[in-house]
Amino acid sequence: MTNKILIVGLGLIGGSYAKALTKNGYKVYAYNRTKEAIDYAKKNNLIVDGTDKFEKEFIMQFDRIIFALYPKILIKYINDYSNFIKDGAIISDVTGVKSSIINTIQEKLGNRVEFIAAHPMAGKEVSGVENADDCIFKNANYIITPTKANTEEGINFAKEIGTMLGFRKVSVLSPEEHDEMIAFLSQLTHCIAVSLMTCKDSEYLVDYTGDSFRDLTRIANINDNMWPELFILNKPYLLKEIDVFINQLSNLRDYINNEDTEKIKEMMRLSTARRKFFNK
Amino acid sequence: MTNKILIVGLGLIGGSYAKALTKNGYKVYAYNRTKEAIDYAKKNNLIVDGTDKFEKEFIMQFDRIIFALYPKILIKYINDYSNFIKDGAIISDVTGVKSSIINTIQEKLGNRVEFIAAHPMAGKEVSGVENADDCIFKNANYIITPTKANTEEGINFAKEIGTMLGFRKVSVLSPEEHDEMIAFLSQLTHCIAVSLMTCKDSEYLVDYTGDSFRDLTRIANINDNMWPELFILNKPYLLKEIDVFINQLSNLRDYINNEDTEKIKEMMRLSTARRKFFNK
Repeated sequence: MTNKILIVGLGLIGGSYAKALTKNGYKVYAYNRTKEAIDYAKKNNLIVDGTDKFEKEFIMQFDRIIFALYPKILIKYINDYSNFIKDGAIISDVTGVKSSIINTIQEKLGNRVEFIAAHPMAGKEVSGVENADDCIFKNANYIITPTKANTEEGINFAKEIGTMLGFRKVSVLSPEEHDEMIAFLSQLTHCIAVSLMTCKDSEYLVDYTGDSFRDLTRIANINDNMWPELFILNKPYLLKEIDVFINQLSNLRDYINNEDTEKIKEMMRLSTARRKFFNK
Repeated sequence: MTNKILIVGLGLIGGSYAKALTKNGYKVYAYNRTKEAIDYAKKNNLIVDGTDKFEKEFIMQFDRIIFALYPKILIKYINDYSNFIKDGAIISDVTGVKSSIINTIQEKLGNRVEFIAAHPMAGKEVSGVENADDCIFKNANYIITPTKANTEEGINFAKEIGTMLGFRKVSVLSPEEHDEMIAFLSQLTHCIAVSLMTCKDSEYLVDYTGDSFRDLTRIANINDNMWPELFILNKPYLLKEIDVFINQLSNLRDYINNEDTEKIKEMMRLSTARRKFFNK
């Protein structure tokens, strides 16, 4: 099996992949639309070589490709350049939404190239290859979401990548299970943080702010290039989770309004008991 | 001026007050309804002496008293035993709600005893005097909420306590400003965390949980003896803040539903810009 791999897109995630895979003995190559990222990655030994020109001759060399792109750009590349990819190649991705993109990509590729979807649930509050850091995978989860179109070889390739990157856990979910889970654990929490941070002018409260408000708004510092796309691509799941949450907060509001101490206590006991499962 | 002080209620907060004030040269005495807490505090040199009997002869000795009790119990003690308190004494509290209790207490005490309200915005996820810890005040805020009934002497007493306890900041707010601030920064955040933790069965998601969900639910581990009382006593302010938050989250929901990327980006940019003010 080849250990030569191409990474398309050398941002924070692509760069961190390159760093970790190079450390693990892979021969990593890269394409990026700006030359600066390629130069930086070569100079810092993240990659063997790379290019800022997306050309058939270059792409054709690779049996394994990881597209480290935002979902809509990923789909554009597959639509425009799928014929650049070698017959029998296995390709993967890093995007945070699955059911809305997998079918489109697999249909476009047909039987010629295998697409195995994967989601590295890792990140940082900074971007760009200069911030590449393979430590971000250490305590994080990596999820593979195969469909009927995938082979054992494809699934094993994605698993191997997850293991090589050093993730705490490599799991397999259906695309739908993944999307529901991510809507609740990640997207809803970001929606809550952004709404809390913007629902009123709060700057004058800085002096009184304690840990709870800071905890709930840490992720309100958010990448506005990436998240709107992820929210919209996962719309059916995310809207459902927002509704479930608003409904429960409205229940609590009613209990407070009715001064129903027993109901509030009950909710708090469930909350406390359930939170214990999430202690690290 | 006397440095002899009585603390009524030796829980986590009362015990931590005792520890810090003793370190600062105060002669701290305590009443607590169970003898175990008094014995523990004496043995560990948090107090000079104490009792589990709330008796007039004992209480009458003190010119300065801090009631470290939940708000409703505080009101009960003042209603039932205000005649135990020495003429000209200055008393304070530690409760997290203000406008709903101050008038009741000040009216009951009349001109004989001065009540100056204060809120130490500090805590821990454990309770009891055995967990007393004066470090909890170090990065926290202490807020005094005087009314027209207060004298300079009373206000200075409360300020001195805040300074002696080692708070990062000692501030003065009106009771109404305090209650609005606390409804937003502390009570709303606890309502959100509890609702997020209880809105659906999430235990099966533990393996996929990252930092954002953990951050937003840390305070879902909540003291169900204290918080329902605080929520209900601050009902008008808290309901208003819950509504403001739900309204903003519903706006975001609409933008996602309408796939209005520009509006989502706009909210995220405001969120990111505003969060920077809250970086420590």
